[in-house]
Amino acid sequence: MSLVENLNWRHAVKAYDPAKKVSNENIDKIIEAARLAPTSSGLQPFKVIVVENREIKERLSKGAFNPECMINCSHVLIFASWDKYTPERIDTAYNRITDERDLPRGRFGRYTDMLKNLYASQTEEQHFVHTAKQSYIALGLALAQAAELKIDTTPAEGFDNHLIDEVLQLSKYGLKSVSLLYVGYADAEKDWLGPMKKVRVPKEEFVIEFK
Amino acid sequence: MSLVENLNWRHAVKAYDPAKKVSNENIDKIIEAARLAPTSSGLQPFKVIVVENREIKERLSKGAFNPECMINCSHVLIFASWDKYTPERIDTAYNRITDERDLPRGRFGRYTDMLKNLYASQTEEQHFVHTAKQSYIALGLALAQAAELKIDTTPAEGFDNHLIDEVLQLSKYGLKSVSLLYVGYADAEKDWLGPMKKVRVPKEEFVIEFK
Repeated sequence: MSLVENLNWRHAVKAYDPAKKVSNENIDKIIEAARLAPTSSGLQPFKVIVVENREIKERLSKGAFNPECMINCSHVLIFASWDKYTPERIDTAYNRITDERDLPRGRFGRYTDMLKNLYASQTEEQHFVHTAKQSYIALGLALAQAAELKIDTTPAEGFDNHLIDEVLQLSKYGLKSVSLLYVGYADAEKDWLGPMKKVRVPKEEFVIEFK
Repeated sequence: MSLVENLNWRHAVKAYDPAKKVSNENIDKIIEAARLAPTSSGLQPFKVIVVENREIKERLSKGAFNPECMINCSHVLIFASWDKYTPERIDTAYNRITDERDLPRGRFGRYTDMLKNLYASQTEEQHFVHTAKQSYIALGLALAQAAELKIDTTPAEGFDNHLIDEVLQLSKYGLKSVSLLYVGYADAEKDWLGPMKKVRVPKEEFVIEFK
């Protein structure tokens, strides 16, 4: 099936069957799509936290808008972004790039200097807005990959970020939670959105053309 | 090819062949993937502006980090998000949803009241951060769709938003530019990134697992 067919197939599932687990192989494929996401200057300023553990899911669910989804889905993916840009993080990313391409370190020095100056002129709040935005590219690709595998997902914001950061001890990694992706298999009887028509802005309203 | 294979195939092209045009049919498919992107509360708070016109591309290129990409690519897609949330915009979206599902208007009234109260408590700047984030989901799906069609793309930030908003008169639509996607076919000789290895954070560093 094509990407567009897969996107038409999926919807934000509202109830999961707790008995149905997603295989590790398929979770790996979903993460791989997120890992391959393009990001600003290639910095990949986020990680994915994968929670399968029931006890941790229950603790996280205290901060969730839909705690039953959190508990009953197979895996919870938390997209968590860098709390800030630092020269060290930029160097780490670009040293990886040059090392893997057999180029001398510093080959992109003019570009990384520009990035360092740019981010030095911004607040940490501005950094986190920017790192969070990048993670949404990966969120979309992860749920598209799940749809290709006919695995259900629910992307979610609107949770208690502070609680989730605490439970997962994200500050230790220099990360802050941005979004959640519940992954699993729907409970078709309880998933009220399942039978409903997918509604989107019609193409004519969605697009403005300058031919 | 699978999504992961398509993501491995693509890279951010650095030079386009101005003689090669993307068909309207394929541009429609790329836009369709963006249109199907999930968004917070289903509000789809953005549009895609498609620019094929050479003169407009030249005017936009004055604000671009890589003006040659802008001019030589086949089509420029501008992802532009709502400048703010308003009760009217929320009602328009939910009236569409209920109308298309043959449900009474107001069926989701408690939910939309909650949204209206939430956004009334925030600044317009906070609104735009949130609407911009949603557009990144669509940006990622659009470039994945292009990759499925073996069409090259370059996602881009780092442009003069004010100039682009002016040229496209985005304020008239209540929109502000967020990101660009150049779409076309690479000039293989000039695209220096083409032959280089794709580099990403290794999976072991990208993922934190709670089993």
